Amino acid sequence: MTPQPNPQAGAAVKAADRAHVFHSWSAQELIDPLAVAGAEGSYFWDYDGNRYLDFTSGLVYTNIGYQHPKVVAAIQEQAATLTTFAPAFAVESRSEAARLIAERTPGDLDKIFFTNGGADAIEHAVRMARIHTGRPKVLTAYRSYHGGTQQAVNMTGDPRRWASDSGTAGVVHFWAPFLYRSRFYAETEQQECERALEHLETTIAFEGPGTIAAIVLETIPGTAGIMVPPRGYLAGVRDLCDRYGIVFVLDEVMAGFGRTGEWFAADLFEVTPDLMTFAKGVNSGYVPLGGVAISGEIAETFGKRPYPGGLTYSGHPLACAAAVATIKLMAEEGVVANASVVGAQVVEPGLRALAERHPSVGEVRGVGMFWALELVKNRETREPLVPYNAAGEANAPMAAFAAAAKAHGLWPFVNMNRTHVVPPCTLTEAEAKEGLAALDAALSMADEYTE
Amino acid sequence: MTPQPNPQAGAAVKAADRAHVFHSWSAQELIDPLAVAGAEGSYFWDYDGNRYLDFTSGLVYTNIGYQHPKVVAAIQEQAATLTTFAPAFAVESRSEAARLIAERTPGDLDKIFFTNGGADAIEHAVRMARIHTGRPKVLTAYRSYHGGTQQAVNMTGDPRRWASDSGTAGVVHFWAPFLYRSRFYAETEQQECERALEHLETTIAFEGPGTIAAIVLETIPGTAGIMVPPRGYLAGVRDLCDRYGIVFVLDEVMAGFGRTGEWFAADLFEVTPDLMTFAKGVNSGYVPLGGVAISGEIAETFGKRPYPGGLTYSGHPLACAAAVATIKLMAEEGVVANASVVGAQVVEPGLRALAERHPSVGEVRGVGMFWALELVKNRETREPLVPYNAAGEANAPMAAFAAAAKAHGLWPFVNMNRTHVVPPCTLTEAEAKEGLAALDAALSMADEYTE
Repeated sequence: MTPQPNPQAGAAVKAADRAHVFHSWSAQELIDPLAVAGAEGSYFWDYDGNRYLDFTSGLVYTNIGYQHPKVVAAIQEQAATLTTFAPAFAVESRSEAARLIAERTPGDLDKIFFTNGGADAIEHAVRMARIHTGRPKVLTAYRSYHGGTQQAVNMTGDPRRWASDSGTAGVVHFWAPFLYRSRFYAETEQQECERALEHLETTIAFEGPGTIAAIVLETIPGTAGIMVPPRGYLAGVRDLCDRYGIVFVLDEVMAGFGRTGEWFAADLFEVTPDLMTFAKGVNSGYVPLGGVAISGEIAETFGKRPYPGGLTYSGHPLACAAAVATIKLMAEEGVVANASVVGAQVVEPGLRALAERHPSVGEVRGVGMFWALELVKNRETREPLVPYNAAGEANAPMAAFAAAAKAHGLWPFVNMNRTHVVPPCTLTEAEAKEGLAALDAALSMADEYTE
Repeated sequence: MTPQPNPQAGAAVKAADRAHVFHSWSAQELIDPLAVAGAEGSYFWDYDGNRYLDFTSGLVYTNIGYQHPKVVAAIQEQAATLTTFAPAFAVESRSEAARLIAERTPGDLDKIFFTNGGADAIEHAVRMARIHTGRPKVLTAYRSYHGGTQQAVNMTGDPRRWASDSGTAGVVHFWAPFLYRSRFYAETEQQECERALEHLETTIAFEGPGTIAAIVLETIPGTAGIMVPPRGYLAGVRDLCDRYGIVFVLDEVMAGFGRTGEWFAADLFEVTPDLMTFAKGVNSGYVPLGGVAISGEIAETFGKRPYPGGLTYSGHPLACAAAVATIKLMAEEGVVANASVVGAQVVEPGLRALAERHPSVGEVRGVGMFWALELVKNRETREPLVPYNAAGEANAPMAAFAAAAKAHGLWPFVNMNRTHVVPPCTLTEAEAKEGLAALDAALSMADEYTE
């Protein structure tokens, strides 16, 4: 399935890229983007004949893998009939996508506001919550990511926020549970859960419950480290929101649509938020699409008065047709179950076996096709393999780990001192084993930096 | 080209829409979205066999009309090869789209940061300006629209801002030139221009030049009323920006890519901004895409230090392939020239003739395929046909105008007391005449509300 190498074509693509493409989150002169020639299923390849098993799903969004023929066909058919139409109209693929999503969202989250991606989904969820409650503030967690636009990046709890950390008011960060690096001096999951809820309730009390529009959490924080919350935590947050009249927003942009082995991570915890944001997995990013699933009560707030927000491409017919095909095939082909089964039976035991063998692995955590390995200098002290937000020389151990993985044909997801194992939800057992073997080799490189 | 009516299918699309789709800028229970069955070129049709000439280009974005076969084919081909890939890589359609855009943007705006649409383009342009200058504030105009996300909607100068008008700091609104409703008591275009520049310079002085990161203007304000700035105004703003070290941002989301009969409206005024935002016309919205064209100087700011912003679908291969095909066909088929010629030779004289005959028309203004008719109760007093931000009964005259246009087979763009004539840039002479005749009939209805 890998075509003949064509380095000359690759060089042309690269040259035009370097001349004209300004890349996300990057120092433009210090990057060296790989020119990609093609992709299929769990693999992609460059113009030099190198083929990589993709343990990143792009940016954790190609949940059905690359170039799924059913979605490609659906895009081609929709393009031939009605590729685009303005948002004020009723359009078949838009109606059908909304229906299929609402069918799967928890509780009464039955109205779907479509956006172009996750960031604008969060922007609009916050606006809905503010207007619904008449309150200004939003509480979000450290160790989180909610998007790159101004409001969304200010809600983010990682260093990508810092450069934009002015000009937006009303965001308060709190600490969510994370036993491995507990902020609460907890020793058990239950203790971590109880103390994290106490911390949140005290924060609500001191911020003033009547000032808080929303609590926004990733159901399972993604790029920040895939910290599966302890049982009871999200139900506890739901309870706090009910008690104080606060809108509970779950961000399922990364965790939703099969990633955790359920349609939504909220299903794992049997909790229903008031608003739920999604993007990525909804159509595996084959066409840009995101959205907010809205409860009956909040939808009613905008029943007789206009919702003051919108966008030209809301419910884009081509993007919605890709979502319809994606959701249908995920159901037909058992993609969500595959994430759960291959995750639990192959990926998880494989990662735990790697942790046994490699002193650089401090913790393995996750569920489904959503795993993080926390790499450390020392398992006792838990000192991260590289410092928080390290760059350049300070980041050399993680760079060496990534280079080793690539040399073994695996494209790894690397963030700070972690590698995430976030392959497509369609990953086969054989592919999982191939990836685990490459990780094994790359972790030997990481081991060299342990003390 | 209109297929057989199928009211039953239309009813199903409508029912699912009403059950599950949450619409932009709307009171959800008070809207009645038309179910659209198909579209081609300058027309679309519903499930009941009604066909409409589209004088809105969707939301002023289908500059090449609906279902252009070259772009449909390009989408189908790209879908078959590489529909999506993550932004950190070099990808052929991404490189080529950036190159073709940079080739057309004015001056040295040669680096392209791709977004999903216009709102996030503005969000990122503001961030680039703030970091480049180290200053916090952004100056924008009343009578403007810049997008629906929090930062963008706060920069907007129309009532859609009001509900979100807290939580974002550092936006200052000033008055741009608009002789017909002059804020400067001006009697000539030249006077309006001089006084608008004096007003802006005084505003800069009182806000503190050292606090201002950017001045952001739509080159020709779009939804706010298509006020073509007087000759010299934008050059004057450019000069003020140079004098005070302020980044000049032109928002060409609506005005760009042929709308004005030039590739960019900036070309009409021979002015080069430091950052230019685009979306809509770049690929006629066939796949969601927007972006920021960046000057050499600002790109260099992010040469060795990371630009702190990004998004999963930046430079989406499918969206970029649609842009490549769109830009090429616009060049090959003379779409930009068509907008200029049919605009100047058919649309403009036609609209001026309508204004002669209809007392409800207070002013005709525009260029290319970008026209506004300002409807008034009384030509002498210039009192708008409906009050600013009118709804319900107060808006009855404009509602009656729109209904009359639709009854004559024309779908009109209506905003407050204006109708905009913003058809595809591919509009033929015959289509222009058909639309003008329908407008003629609809304006007779508007005339009934004049005093």
